[in-house]
Amino acid sequence: MTSLVTGGAGFIACTLISRLLDAGGRVIAVDNLSRGTRENMRPFADHPRFAFVHADLVDLDRFRGEVVRAAGSEPVSEVWHLAANSDIPAGVADPGVDLRDTFMTTFNVLRVMRDLRIPALMFASSSAIYGDLGDRALTEDVGPLFPISNYGAMKLASEAQITAACEAFLSRGLIFRFPNVVGVPATHGVILDFVRKLASDGSALPVLGDGTQRKSYLHVTDLVDAMLFVKQRAERRVDAFNIGPVDEGVTVSQIAREVVSVVSPGARIVFGEGAKGWVGDVPRFRYSVEKLSGLGWRPSLGSLDAIRRAVREIAEQERV
Amino acid sequence: MTSLVTGGAGFIACTLISRLLDAGGRVIAVDNLSRGTRENMRPFADHPRFAFVHADLVDLDRFRGEVVRAAGSEPVSEVWHLAANSDIPAGVADPGVDLRDTFMTTFNVLRVMRDLRIPALMFASSSAIYGDLGDRALTEDVGPLFPISNYGAMKLASEAQITAACEAFLSRGLIFRFPNVVGVPATHGVILDFVRKLASDGSALPVLGDGTQRKSYLHVTDLVDAMLFVKQRAERRVDAFNIGPVDEGVTVSQIAREVVSVVSPGARIVFGEGAKGWVGDVPRFRYSVEKLSGLGWRPSLGSLDAIRRAVREIAEQERV
Repeated sequence: MTSLVTGGAGFIACTLISRLLDAGGRVIAVDNLSRGTRENMRPFADHPRFAFVHADLVDLDRFRGEVVRAAGSEPVSEVWHLAANSDIPAGVADPGVDLRDTFMTTFNVLRVMRDLRIPALMFASSSAIYGDLGDRALTEDVGPLFPISNYGAMKLASEAQITAACEAFLSRGLIFRFPNVVGVPATHGVILDFVRKLASDGSALPVLGDGTQRKSYLHVTDLVDAMLFVKQRAERRVDAFNIGPVDEGVTVSQIAREVVSVVSPGARIVFGEGAKGWVGDVPRFRYSVEKLSGLGWRPSLGSLDAIRRAVREIAEQERV
Repeated sequence: MTSLVTGGAGFIACTLISRLLDAGGRVIAVDNLSRGTRENMRPFADHPRFAFVHADLVDLDRFRGEVVRAAGSEPVSEVWHLAANSDIPAGVADPGVDLRDTFMTTFNVLRVMRDLRIPALMFASSSAIYGDLGDRALTEDVGPLFPISNYGAMKLASEAQITAACEAFLSRGLIFRFPNVVGVPATHGVILDFVRKLASDGSALPVLGDGTQRKSYLHVTDLVDAMLFVKQRAERRVDAFNIGPVDEGVTVSQIAREVVSVVSPGARIVFGEGAKGWVGDVPRFRYSVEKLSGLGWRPSLGSLDAIRRAVREIAEQERV
């Protein structure tokens, strides 16, 4: 069993690759190292069943050629497609960022899967595809889908291209809609942002918005566990699953307090105005994971405990 | 009031442009003439408030430059974005077709709208975004949206990019989800296909599939009327409307009989097998237009009468 993991040097891939190797599989990681790092792959860099390919998915010919070379005589059985732009504000400023890094990566993954006859795709989608549906519960079949960020738009475009591919040539397509995911190695996100702000000025933590924004957070170990669980249990050939904790999430204010207590106890938290932090940020968020729960999966950590664990891990990573 | 119409030399644009000019507006039509024709624009080619721009939307710099030149000192107020690939089977064979002609056209229209500060977009989307939801009624908020053709996927991608643009810079975005539309000037579609088959062999009409596929059809004059109506009446800044007749549609078998009766009475109809005509074709189809009806719009022709009128018009166009 050979798994190809795109975005293979990134945050979520590190945990996924460990699990795939532990289960006895062979892993080919591909990454353009724009945000992922060789450092991230150090724990399994010398593993006999691990190979790294430095390539950009947007360069189709090179990407396909390097995968063929790395796979050798044993065909690739599945792709875990995690590569994407992960900086939503950057994609607001320039829609070309998510076009290239969030959508065209998926488009080219599908072209390579068709060319190399790789049958199964697991895709890292996002709760951002739901846009702002106010107080409605975000189940997998809610509508209309009006994403409000270019990132969410290009994740929805990717999902759509995948379901069309499942009609044409792909045997299986599983779409995982991620909540906010926390843990290490952290490359971006609100905790890392807060930790670094406090590292440079330990007296005060400035926060975008009024701190009332509430979101669900899942620890990366739970996220990867859920994906592997769903892959075993899901019955439909093409399906989408929200992944997240079963609670109602935590506020930015709670996160700020956790970071302050670990990194710089006593620092003042200075809030901004309004419920939105930036264009494309969704203030309210009622993410339903009933479908996932119905399969029998439960997270080991709720939102607040995931945040608490990640704050400690990220503080250690940043050596503050 | 200046309207920019993309796909301006195409089937639906002909009727729309006539209506916009009749209402006293100025119209700039842009088309790459890949399927649209100068012949189609003959009725208003010399109109003092009409201008044609020969450009491909995918060539961003040329497209933007030509629009600026054609607009002159009066700014463009709105875009009717009708340009797209309209050959679903071609897009099945090569996903690059719909990437380029269905999605990148939308992406570039939005870039030009941002650059030129054009505030309002009316977009021709499609019922193909719904994929195959079996017997469920296709309301605007149904889910999940798993399109089964590259065309449907890239229409959904376009919708998503538009709603994200409405969050960032666009004042208004109206999404119209078209049913199958019939009328003249016909460039493709089942009626034209049948008419041409009978023109080359008047003794028999071969039909893909078993003829039981049922779809809704709207005449192009009703379609354009509905869009103009919705633009006046819709209250939300960003919204989607299914457009279609209020009936349950007609079968391929009924369409074949209508064409035979007009073009070659007595010809045998030879059916194929199975309920699907080709990959990406949706066999069942329960298209809800309750939202449109709720605004107060009614079509002048139901599916069968739309087909009957279009068969006569297309037979005349083809001189058979």
